[in-house]
Order: sequence, then structure tokens, then C-alpha cells
Amino acid sequence: MKQSQLFTKTEKNFPKDEESVNAKYLIRAGFIRKASAGVYSFLPLGLRVLNKINQIIREEMNEIGGQEVLFPSLIAKKYWQKSGRWNVPVMYKLKVQRDEFGLGWTHEEIAADLADHFIRSEKDLPQAVYQIQNKFRLEPRARSGLLRTREFLMKDLYSFHKTEDDLEKFYKTAEKAYLKIFKRLSLPVKVVEASGGDFTKQYTHEFQTLVDSGEDTVFYCSKCKFAQNKEVAKVKAGAKCPDCKCVIEESRAIEVGNIFRLGNRFSPWYMGSYGIGPSRSMAALVEVSHDDKGVIWPEAVAPYQVHLLELGKISASKIYEKLKDKGIEVLYDDRPISPGEKFADADLIGIPYRLVVSERNAKKVEVKARGAKKTKLLTEKELIKWLTS
Amino acid sequence: MKQSQLFTKTEKNFPKDEESVNAKYLIRAGFIRKASAGVYSFLPLGLRVLNKINQIIREEMNEIGGQEVLFPSLIAKKYWQKSGRWNVPVMYKLKVQRDEFGLGWTHEEIAADLADHFIRSEKDLPQAVYQIQNKFRLEPRARSGLLRTREFLMKDLYSFHKTEDDLEKFYKTAEKAYLKIFKRLSLPVKVVEASGGDFTKQYTHEFQTLVDSGEDTVFYCSKCKFAQNKEVAKVKAGAKCPDCKCVIEESRAIEVGNIFRLGNRFSPWYMGSYGIGPSRSMAALVEVSHDDKGVIWPEAVAPYQVHLLELGKISASKIYEKLKDKGIEVLYDDRPISPGEKFADADLIGIPYRLVVSERNAKKVEVKARGAKKTKLLTEKELIKWLTS
Repeated sequence: MKQSQLFTKTEKNFPKDEESVNAKYLIRAGFIRKASAGVYSFLPLGLRVLNKINQIIREEMNEIGGQEVLFPSLIAKKYWQKSGRWNVPVMYKLKVQRDEFGLGWTHEEIAADLADHFIRSEKDLPQAVYQIQNKFRLEPRARSGLLRTREFLMKDLYSFHKTEDDLEKFYKTAEKAYLKIFKRLSLPVKVVEASGGDFTKQYTHEFQTLVDSGEDTVFYCSKCKFAQNKEVAKVKAGAKCPDCKCVIEESRAIEVGNIFRLGNRFSPWYMGSYGIGPSRSMAALVEVSHDDKGVIWPEAVAPYQVHLLELGKISASKIYEKLKDKGIEVLYDDRPISPGEKFADADLIGIPYRLVVSERNAKKVEVKARGAKKTKLLTEKELIKWLTS
Repeated sequence: MKQSQLFTKTEKNFPKDEESVNAKYLIRAGFIRKASAGVYSFLPLGLRVLNKINQIIREEMNEIGGQEVLFPSLIAKKYWQKSGRWNVPVMYKLKVQRDEFGLGWTHEEIAADLADHFIRSEKDLPQAVYQIQNKFRLEPRARSGLLRTREFLMKDLYSFHKTEDDLEKFYKTAEKAYLKIFKRLSLPVKVVEASGGDFTKQYTHEFQTLVDSGEDTVFYCSKCKFAQNKEVAKVKAGAKCPDCKCVIEESRAIEVGNIFRLGNRFSPWYMGSYGIGPSRSMAALVEVSHDDKGVIWPEAVAPYQVHLLELGKISASKIYEKLKDKGIEVLYDDRPISPGEKFADADLIGIPYRLVVSERNAKKVEVKARGAKKTKLLTEKELIKWLTS
């Protein structure tokens, strides 16, 4: 993509009406735009990141047998009444003549209706369907950029099983798939025990990214895997870990995923529900991976693999075409602006590798990783070999 | 995909609460499920079709310079007030404390706001952004299956230009891209002159699929390209075509796309808006391409390329694995049911090619195109060569 043709532009200053790091950087770099409190558009660069996150999630959901579906957002009152959730405070409601709908903030009701219809006997089990789509939450105080919004992207997987034991096995499988997803996203998470809500006396598990800007509080062992959400924690900071006797620490955290055993709460079959917020994960990545110049995207989700800058009177169009031909995703800064502005934008946007073509570098290309200070000079041939290996 | 593991099942009978051909077949074959009047879930087979349609649209939108974005559905009152569309009867409205939203039934307001913000001068033009996402319409009488729903998928492209002449040129480019899309979808369309609405005295253009089940009425020339929507038509059936003097005919039709010149109605720049309904296109395909046994999908949008049936005691699992390894999309009917049931399901689901592995065919595979009567026997090697060529 030629940056001269990109629909968005970076901003010189941070937005005045945002406090969170993720919103400040994502808006300033042109990834998102706020439409109103808690409501954002995803712009071309932002949607590319979101789609890469979605694709990683999709691959891992398919891997554990999930089948993708698309559910409606207009969910008729009868479904919510059946489950007893018509009056949950987070639901937007619509009343039009005789029709009443709740806007989907979660889809257990619709998934269970499908299961009721298509699962005729135990022989049809197990089954798992998932959706990646917008959901809605009536948040009186939308805040923290993409972390707490009124409309947000969600991946929700719903599984159905013959026995509680089968559910338990799949629950573990889903946990492993989640850890693989967050590893592929380069988003560090802890698996945290949390309240099971109405459905179960067992803990549910949250996937929490430890970072000061998180809303949740987590107590975790400095050495082993033990971690509990403050809501259920039986230990405090400084205490001894019940598992390994090491020191318990405390941190704020962002919940980027969760897995629930639902038992027979919604369906005659044993049901589980497994959520990941792709837009929230995108925000969490910014919260944990940035410096004072901008975002530092991990390679797996960066909007482009390389940011190609041409400086001065030299043209990088030939190498741009060559890289594209090799299947490399390139953002090509061909704009007639100063080197300083190009460097600043490259840092702000945060693509993993910056390639500089300039008279000073003669026929070589200067390569710098976004987080690094060192640069190296490569010939075109060396560059392509390195990028495609 | 092994059909024994597919989440959905076909139904023996047509649904009783649907009259349209598209809903009858798509529900019976397990592509969609009705949640309430005018509100449907897309199930695994249905979502595969929808995604293929979306991908074709996406490629052609990228080809003419469109940049993909994702807009919110919760659109604050201020945007609709600015454009004077707060009180359109088709909009679902939400009022929560001080916040009022209209659910996006179209997104000119949001696209124009982006343009206002990011297009700083004429030098930044032309620009075009598009979205493929769910929209909402308050339809008092939802009907005709996926043809007129309360929630539906839309692709909308919004373009911005320096001059009216530039808009005009892009309008023609978009028209060509649309014809290419419908050709790739194997969906026959006529470009039909229609009312420009409030925005322009010129005609807008609709892309209409001629079929008895359509809601619109179109008068068109039996020989040349002349075609007008009844709303604006200056000719009737039997009259002479104003362009070529041949006979004018009349037909019902489904509007699957439309292109509008918006001028400066929403933006200081010259704006155009270009819509295609992917879910409506899917329904239109069923309306024009089915027989009394089921759907006949065109290859480009079929949920799978081939439907592999194993009959009797023979296993087709080896050839299933081989085809998958070659990158061929296979639905593999490995269920322990009668040949008659398998044939009936294959016809109902409508995958372009049926492959039969049975003792009768010895080591060969019987191939039949969905619409055809003739079969042919191919060796495994011949089959793979034919499918991958």
C-alpha cells in the first residue's frame, strides 16, 4: 500500500478526550476513530490488525473442531425470557410495535436453540460452533479506549457434550487452544481462577494480561502457575503460594478471554462457552507493547510486515513492487515529506521492520526492527532472502 | 469436512412458516436457521457461501482502490440529525439515559465524518472506503426469506472526489466492477435505471436479477441494454425500445446492488455510494438456480467444491484425505445411511460435483455435475487431475 493513497493520516497530537494508552496511540496513528463514547470505527490499518487476530483465533478454533457460524444481533425477547436473562442491565433493548429484541451481548441462547434443533441424540455429540462478530453492551461508563466499549468484536465458542466428563475434557482442550492463540498473538497471559457465576461452583478461568492499566486485580505466584482474580482470591500479596510456597504478587490485569462450564443451564446437553475479545486483545497488545514514540506490533498481527521509507530524491518504487511480488506486505511511504516526519510516523504506526532507501545508503536498504536501536544494511537480494525465509 | 461431524442436518420437509424458495431450501438444507421473523443465523454451510461471496466482492473493491473498514452499528443521534435522517421510518432507535442511537441501516454519515476528518485538501482525493457488515432495517413485514430481513449483511462502498466529473468516472468504474462481481458469482443481472431519490435528478442504477419471485418490476429491451425500474419507466411491456426499437418486456426482479451519486449531500467532497447485499445475493442465487430436488450452487460460491459419497461397505476416507491434501474443498458423506438418503441430501445441498465411491464402481469414482443427468467414471488420478487443472 502506498502511504500517499492511504485513507488515514497520523495526527501530530494525542486526542484530548482519551486517557488510555491504547486509544491515544490507535487514534493518533489512524487505526481507529471514535464515533461516540465507547463506539469506534476500525480504519484500514486497524482492520488489518483485527483481521489478523481473527484469523489466528479462527485457525485454532477450527483445529479443536469448532465450526464457524454467524448469529443475529436482534435476539427476540422469547429467547432471553426462556433463559431468564431478559432483564440483565447490560442489554440494549428495542421495542417496535409487537416486536421486542435484546441486542446480542452474548449468544448462549441462540447457540442452545441450534443445539436443541440439530443435536437429535447423544450420537451427534460432541459439537462446537463459534462466531466472530460484533456484540453490544450497555456500558454506562464506556472507558479505556477499546478495553470497555458499547460495541465490540467477540469470538464466542459454544460446545455441547454427552457427559460432564466430556465437557471437562473439552474445557482443557479449549484452555490449551487459548494459550496457543495468545502465544501466537505475542500477548502474555496468565490463566486466572475466577468466579463461576450462577452456573457452577467450580472456578471458571480468565486469561489475564498483567498490566497497570487493567481493570481487574490478580494475585499470582511469582514462580508457579497459581493465579486468582481478586474476587475469589484466598491469598493476598506477600502471602505464601498455596501450591509452591513462593511469594504471591499482585497486579492489575486486562481480561482478554474466559472459559465457562455452563452445565445444563441453557441446554439439555452439557454446554461450555469460551470467549475472546479480538478488539480488546488488540488494545491489550498496545498497552503492553509500546514506547513513547508509538506502538510496537508483534509480527503476527502487524498491519504490514515492513514499512518502506524513501528519503530525499530517490525512489523506492522498484523495490516496493519486488517485495509485493514476493508476497510481502509493505506499507510504502512515498509521500513528499521530510525524513523526520517519515521516521516519526513509522515509529508511531509501529510496523515491525522499517526499511530505508536513501542516497546515503547507496544501493543498499537500511533495516531496523521497531523496538531496536541498531540498523543493518542489506542488498536487495539479501533483504528479500531474509524476509521470505 | 466429514458430514457425520457437520453441526447441521438436512430436514425431510420444507419449513411451514416460509413461502419463498430461498428460505425453504436454505433452511431445509441446513444453510440458515430462522431466529424470528426476518432474522436468521448463518450455519456452517451457509457461512461458507456467504464468505465466498464476500471474498469476491472484497477482491473487486480492492481492485478499484477501495480500502476496507469496519463501522459501528450504534450510530449516535448527532450524526443522523446532521444529515436530517433521524426520523427515517426504517431505523431502529435506542434511547438509554442521555444516549440515543440509530442502528446503522446505511453508513453515509459515518463515512462522511471520516472523510471530513482525514481528507484535508483536494490533493488527498480520490478516496474510497468500504465495509462488509451487518445492517439493520425496521421492516414491519419481513418476508421472502433472505430477500427482505431485519438484519442483513451489506457491502457498502463510499467514494469521495474533487469534481463531479471525477465522481462520474468512478461511478462508471464501480458499475464495471459490479458487473464483474455478479459475473463471478454467476448471478445474472440487468443494469436498471431507477429513481435518484433526494440526491440527484439523474438516474441511479440498480443491479436487478430477473426472476418471478422478485419484489421489483423492471421493463427491459429484449435485445439491447435498455432497462428501467417501473418507478421511473417511460415505457411499458410491448412498447418499442427507445434505443433500438425492439420490443420492451416486463419482469419481476430482485435488486441485488445499487449505485448512487450523492453529490454534496453528506460531504463537502463529491460523494458516491455503492451497495451490494451479500446475503440477498445468496438468496437470489437460490431463486434463479434450483430444481425440485434442491439448490444448484455455482462453483464460485458453493460451500464445498465436491460432495464425496461413500456407498455400502466401502470407505472413501483415503480419497477424502488425498483430495484435501490437494487443497480441494470436500464435504465427505461418511454417514451410515442409505444411498438414497445420501443422493437426496447431495441434491438438496447442491454442491456442484457429486463423487460416488461404491463397490459397483470398483476402483473408479463416479462423477456427476449437480445439474446434469450424465455421470462419468474416473480413476483417482484422473479425478485429481481434473479437479486441480
